Amino acid sequence: MSPSATATSAASSTATLYDVIERRRDVRAEFTGEPVPEETLLRVLGAAHRAPSVGMSQPWDFVVVRDPVVRRAFRDHVADERDTFAASLPPERRSTFDKIKVEGICESSMGIVVTHSQDRGGQHVLGRHAIADAGLFSSVLAIQNLWLAATAEGLGLGWVSFYREPFLRDLLGIPAAVRPIAWLCVGTVSHLETVPDLERHGWRSRRSLADAIHDNAWRDHA
Amino acid sequence: MSPSATATSAASSTATLYDVIERRRDVRAEFTGEPVPEETLLRVLGAAHRAPSVGMSQPWDFVVVRDPVVRRAFRDHVADERDTFAASLPPERRSTFDKIKVEGICESSMGIVVTHSQDRGGQHVLGRHAIADAGLFSSVLAIQNLWLAATAEGLGLGWVSFYREPFLRDLLGIPAAVRPIAWLCVGTVSHLETVPDLERHGWRSRRSLADAIHDNAWRDHA
Repeated sequence: MSPSATATSAASSTATLYDVIERRRDVRAEFTGEPVPEETLLRVLGAAHRAPSVGMSQPWDFVVVRDPVVRRAFRDHVADERDTFAASLPPERRSTFDKIKVEGICESSMGIVVTHSQDRGGQHVLGRHAIADAGLFSSVLAIQNLWLAATAEGLGLGWVSFYREPFLRDLLGIPAAVRPIAWLCVGTVSHLETVPDLERHGWRSRRSLADAIHDNAWRDHA
Repeated sequence: MSPSATATSAASSTATLYDVIERRRDVRAEFTGEPVPEETLLRVLGAAHRAPSVGMSQPWDFVVVRDPVVRRAFRDHVADERDTFAASLPPERRSTFDKIKVEGICESSMGIVVTHSQDRGGQHVLGRHAIADAGLFSSVLAIQNLWLAATAEGLGLGWVSFYREPFLRDLLGIPAAVRPIAWLCVGTVSHLETVPDLERHGWRSRRSLADAIHDNAWRDHA
């Protein structure tokens, strides 16, 4: 390619990526429950599976949960945990929280449970001897690839974290050495909101980028 | 847009994203050290800053390290940790490891240290009461956005994990309540390799996607 063709291609590639990053939402209320074609699901999981991983350990797995009985059991557990969190809040925060939907487990097309196996990669994982969590970080990177791929495919994804890990492990028969790190509601949607739910409902507003950047050393922005 | 225009746009958006995900490499040897324009760096950090976060806590910060003195001190520490890991290996693995470069700290254009603040978001972080690590996961999601944005911009990125967190905290004056979770070497590159370094050097090969997918419940693939 000529230099200008390369520049155009790079510009279009960044514009598209930034658009997907911007459109990505944490979806709860917009799922329609239509089936997702198998080839679409495989592309999305393939994107997750191409994430970087410490020592190329690829410590993630994906449990795709379509079974409505399993999903209802998980939803009931999440409802209990929602109540637990609500009970911990002061009255003003509680009334804000009451309006916020925290999951779309049964309304989505499927759940995708992402797990992390610290045993994957054997005894000598390159890059993990000093930082044990480097393995866990890899599994989380896979989730962001999955999320962006789902968004680009026109699907919605919502990460549910109102649950206890032992409950989810028991529900899906996950071995003790494997940690379930996320239940992702994935599926067709009516639309994606342009403003995040928590901002729209007045729970919290966004921090400025400038506040997050430090030069050469930490400085307190306060 | 007509349905077919929408479909075309979705197809081009997924193709571009999948291409960036596929091209992304964990870079060590290909850095050229040229300066990165400030507006490019801000777009890349802006992509990181638009990551999802539990309860919209945005618990990450980015310390951009260009100072060569700081970088040399970190590189020397990493060299020691490399020796520590090498000494733990059986002879056959060690000779494979000896050929593998683990960092490009001084050759890259800059280091970006990503930190995680568990205190961010106050006492009641929505979605974190049952899973304390949900905050940490958010900071890791930001890293994957950063990595893909750097790749789309034609830059390289290499995550260094051969270090002890207390050393890096002291080096950058990071407060005790904040955890440095990654040193990312970021910068201009001669090219990106098409095969990951660890695969090319025979350290480890990739797992198949089919082995990572489970239906409705965990099953052992062995």
